[in-house]
This record gives sequence, C-alpha cells and structure tokens, in this order.
Amino acid sequence: MPAKVLINGYGSIGKRVADAVSMQDDMEVIGVTKTKPDFEARLAVEKGYKLFVAIPDKERVKLFEDAGIPVEGTVLDIIEEADIVVDGAPKKIGKQNLENIYKPHKVKAILQGGEKAKDVEDNFNALWSYNRCYGKDYVRVVSCNTTGLCRILYAINSVAEIKKARIVLVRRAADPNDDKTGPVNAITPNPVTVPSHHGPDVVSVVPEFEGKILTSAVIVPTTLMHMHTLMVEIEGNIGKDDVLEAIKKTPRIITVKAEEGFSSTAKIIEYGRDLGRLRYDINELVVWEESINVLENEIFLMQAVHQESIVIPENIDCIRAMLQMEEDNFKSIEKTNKAMGIQ
Amino acid sequence: MPAKVLINGYGSIGKRVADAVSMQDDMEVIGVTKTKPDFEARLAVEKGYKLFVAIPDKERVKLFEDAGIPVEGTVLDIIEEADIVVDGAPKKIGKQNLENIYKPHKVKAILQGGEKAKDVEDNFNALWSYNRCYGKDYVRVVSCNTTGLCRILYAINSVAEIKKARIVLVRRAADPNDDKTGPVNAITPNPVTVPSHHGPDVVSVVPEFEGKILTSAVIVPTTLMHMHTLMVEIEGNIGKDDVLEAIKKTPRIITVKAEEGFSSTAKIIEYGRDLGRLRYDINELVVWEESINVLENEIFLMQAVHQESIVIPENIDCIRAMLQMEEDNFKSIEKTNKAMGIQ
Repeated sequence: MPAKVLINGYGSIGKRVADAVSMQDDMEVIGVTKTKPDFEARLAVEKGYKLFVAIPDKERVKLFEDAGIPVEGTVLDIIEEADIVVDGAPKKIGKQNLENIYKPHKVKAILQGGEKAKDVEDNFNALWSYNRCYGKDYVRVVSCNTTGLCRILYAINSVAEIKKARIVLVRRAADPNDDKTGPVNAITPNPVTVPSHHGPDVVSVVPEFEGKILTSAVIVPTTLMHMHTLMVEIEGNIGKDDVLEAIKKTPRIITVKAEEGFSSTAKIIEYGRDLGRLRYDINELVVWEESINVLENEIFLMQAVHQESIVIPENIDCIRAMLQMEEDNFKSIEKTNKAMGIQ
Repeated sequence: MPAKVLINGYGSIGKRVADAVSMQDDMEVIGVTKTKPDFEARLAVEKGYKLFVAIPDKERVKLFEDAGIPVEGTVLDIIEEADIVVDGAPKKIGKQNLENIYKPHKVKAILQGGEKAKDVEDNFNALWSYNRCYGKDYVRVVSCNTTGLCRILYAINSVAEIKKARIVLVRRAADPNDDKTGPVNAITPNPVTVPSHHGPDVVSVVPEFEGKILTSAVIVPTTLMHMHTLMVEIEGNIGKDDVLEAIKKTPRIITVKAEEGFSSTAKIIEYGRDLGRLRYDINELVVWEESINVLENEIFLMQAVHQESIVIPENIDCIRAMLQMEEDNFKSIEKTNKAMGIQ
C-alpha cells in the first residue's frame, strides 16, 4: 500500500511536493488544500488532485463553489486518512497548523524551513539527519539556503575536516510569481546583524558544526536564485581537484562552468528551461567549477540555490524516513532522484 | 596662485571632480573635456567651465559646433597650461591618454581605478598612501570598492592588528545613468574565480596587507550602491564598541542605524537627497552600526559604497599630494571635507 500523503497548502512548495510524491511508486497524494480559489486551485483540480479547503469554514467553502472550483470538503474531512501531512503553508502558519490540526488529529507532519527548529522534534536533510528523523512525528525540512549549505558542507566534510566556514548569502528578493515584494532597486542587509541565523540553522541539522558556521546575508533585486559565496577553513590541506571530485560524488549537486556559458543565475535557469524541467526547477545545488579554489587550508567556492525547488526531494526522503519506509538514506535519495529525473 | 587642474573626460567621475575642485580655495578648473556634444557637455558650458574637445580632430570639433555647444579648442590646446590633469576617461582609455598625451606633454596626471596599478607610479588613498604619492607624476586613485575597503581597514587597523580579512562584495550592476548594462534579473559571479582582484587592489595601496585580504564578488541588479560584508580576523580581542569608536574617528566614514530607518542602500540614497547633496552624492563610506560585531577575535560588519562619488575627495587630496601643496594628509583631508561639506 503506498503511503497516503496530504499536502496542506498547495503553493510554491506544496504544488511541487504534490507532483514529486506523484512520481514515486511508494507514496500517493490523497488530497491537496488551498485557502483561495485561484488559478493554482483550478490547476490542482485539472491535474486530478482532490482539492480540499484549507480553512474549515462554510463561507470559505462557498468561495470555491462560487468560483466554480469543485472541492471535496475541508482539511478536517481528509486529515485522518493521511499517514503524513506535508505542510506548505506560509511562514508561522505551519506552526499554527501543527498545534491546531496535526497534533490533535495525531497525524505525522512535515513543516517547511520558514518554521522554527524549536517547534519540531528534529530538522531534516537527507544527507545528514535521515537516520535521526527515522520514525519521528513532527519534523522540519530546513530552508532552501540551509539545504544548499548542508549539501555543500557534506561534500567538503567528506574530504576535509571543517574548521570554520564563512559564508555570505546573496538572497533573491522575491519568487518569480511574487508581484508585491521588493526591493526593486536596493541591496538590503537582512538581517542587518552579523552573523545571521543561517549558521545556527545549519547547526539544527548538524550539531557538530556548532560555532563553526558564520554567515551574513543581503537581499538583492532578483527572483531566480540565491547565491552563496563560501570561504571554508579546513584542517590540513587538499587540492582543488579533491574538492571538485567530492562535490561531483555528492548527490543533488551539479557543477557548471562559466566558460560553457553559465555566466549567471539567469543562465542556470535557462538551462532548466531547455532541459524541459517542469516549472524549470533545478532541484540540485549548483556549483561553479571555476570558483573552486584552495589557498592556505581554505576552500573557496560560489554556488546557486533554486529557492523554489531545492527542498522538494528532501520532503520526499523525509516522508520515507518518518514513515520508516526505507532504512538507508542513500537508497531513498537514489529512488527519489530517479523518479524525479534529477542528479 | 591656485593649482591649475584640467579635467580630461567630464563624465561620472570627471564632472564630480570638477565641482569638487571648484569648491577648494587652492585649486581651480582651467578646463574640462568631452568626446561628444551631449547634455553633460552643454551643462558644463552653462556652469561656466571652459570646454575642450577630448579628441583632437577637426571633425570632432565640428560635431560640437553643429550641436551649438561652444568649445575653446581641443585637449591639446590646454594641456600644457595644466599643473595636473585628472583623467576621467573610461577604463583603458586612461592608460592610452597617459602614454599619448600626458607623458609627451610632461604634465602630471591622476588616473582612476579602472586603470591598472602597473601602469602608474603609485596608488592613492588619502589615509594610507598620501605621503608615498607626494610629488609623484603619475598616480592612480583606486576604485570605489577599493577606496571603501581602504577606509574601513584603516579604521580597524587603528585598534587591532589585522590577521586576515574575508570580504564579499555585492556590486551594483550599473550606474543610475547607464541604460545599457545588466543584469536586470540575475546574480552574476564577477569574477567567477575566487579570490577576486579586489584584495590585490587593496594591497596596491597597502603593501603590508599582502596575502591578508581575501575577496569574492558578485554583481546584482541595482544601480544605487555597492555593499560589502566583512569578516576580519584580528590578533587579540577587542569589543564592538572599540570598533564603532574607531570607525567614528576615521574621516570619510559615517555610520547609520537600521532602527533609524536605514534598512537598505535605497534609504541611504534617500538620505543624500534629503540632505540636498549635489546629485545626492554620499562621498563617505557608510557602515551599519547594528552589523558591527566581534566574536572570537573576528570583527564582522556590513557597509555600503556610493560608487559614483566615494573617490571624489580622494582625487582632491591626490592633487595636493602630487603638487606638494600640503605635507600633512590629515590637513588635506580636513580641508577637502570642509570645502565639500562632507564628514
């Protein structure tokens, strides 16, 4: 019997997780929820997903009926049929859903990176904390930036002991579908305090990095991807080829070359479009080969993170871990990747 | 007798240097040059500057006459009257001017940061290399980013020995008047190799920092200012108040507080507009107070650089040093700042 997955919040993350679950042979989407009868809701129904109203309220259901979008009921009509819920609600709403819906109905739940580490049992990355999250009930898949950092630090950690990593995050201002958020023409220190919270967020997944990950972040006017520049002090010394090889061996990281035309995040997205990826998603972390360097026990590199999609395969593996469907994290990673057509 | 200054290239830098020279009581603008009869050329004449054609060619002069913009001749008609030329030509043209015009006519010249360190006698920053450039003939005022880094490293160096500085530069894509350059929606690693050339450029001013300044840079879609995030390892330990105090004592650095509304570079520029600064120029380096932190012998901070104007007061001091008009760099800095109304 495939695992029954409910997607609560069919937005940027939710719709992608729904499609990714549908691609797996060991799990199925039993329903998706929306708060508003917008085009995403209509598309969900057209795709064949059973649609439920995320807010259990008669007037809310009527909104959908008035818009001519058929619903099967509200989230409360389906919640207890689910083996697990993937929460795709906006920041802070995930925590409310956990307390108000998932815990009272005793259903396992995955929250996203916008929620806080302290509100869940553990924090998930398929490479680092799959075993720790095995069988747990309430787990957070960390944010896109943290996921990207976890992957690259896993690759580096496989060939060198990390002494101190200094990372600057250059964050996209808004997602492509966001027509409200800025800045349009400014660079915003966010947070203005240094170090930023991204280092501690990595530590929520990898406690052994406590005190070793120092991050700083700004927001810039772009929608496509985040970029990170890393300076990682290591014990001992290795060559840049060792770093490149370790990166290439790590699942869900791809490398690109500027000399092959990958001059910016825009070119990486064009690549995703040319590959015919659904929504041009780049689920892999992307590292520029030319940026990799090692100088005096310090590794340098630059990488890009597709904020909308990097966490999607992590959600799939997290489902398998929490429902104890596969003991070996690398087997789950391979299965997920193969089904989704990612590296 | 005030020093006679010719501005060769009345563009972004040249027009600002012309205005800054005009504000000083010990130097005067004897002429400015333009290659094209555009609105900047017309405004130069309306402001009372004597306009010369930058390209000594009859057809080029006719272009200006046809446009109804009166010129006094070409650069070759005025060059030998100058005590010094400030070159404001685009990147690489400065070097050509040096070889083809300034050296043959035996006139001292200041080149800008777009030129290379190896093509001049020395590299100027008023805090660090005024004395070294004293009386020299061909000197480069380093770029806006390098000038910003020189100022903050001077402040830090005044209270702590710098062991290693790691800096990420988030660069503006284009100046506000540039309607051709991108990216519009991308983050571009530039250069894609790490470390970038900005570290060595600081070393061209401060040789004692050899091997200690590691930089990485990206370009982002904004026009207003560059931003830097710094992580500076020091010998020994100090408090964040010591760092703030050192910054406040250093000329040409101002600090702002996010809590007072300075949430981004856009707000800093709005401040320049509200102050009634000509062209809203912020000649000072701007440091966010909240960003200043010290953790385990490492200083963290974030700063913004107004790319169009930060080097202008440096050009003025450089004139004084090269023409041996003032022996004490701090007296020149104070005089320049007072005349320009900057801190």
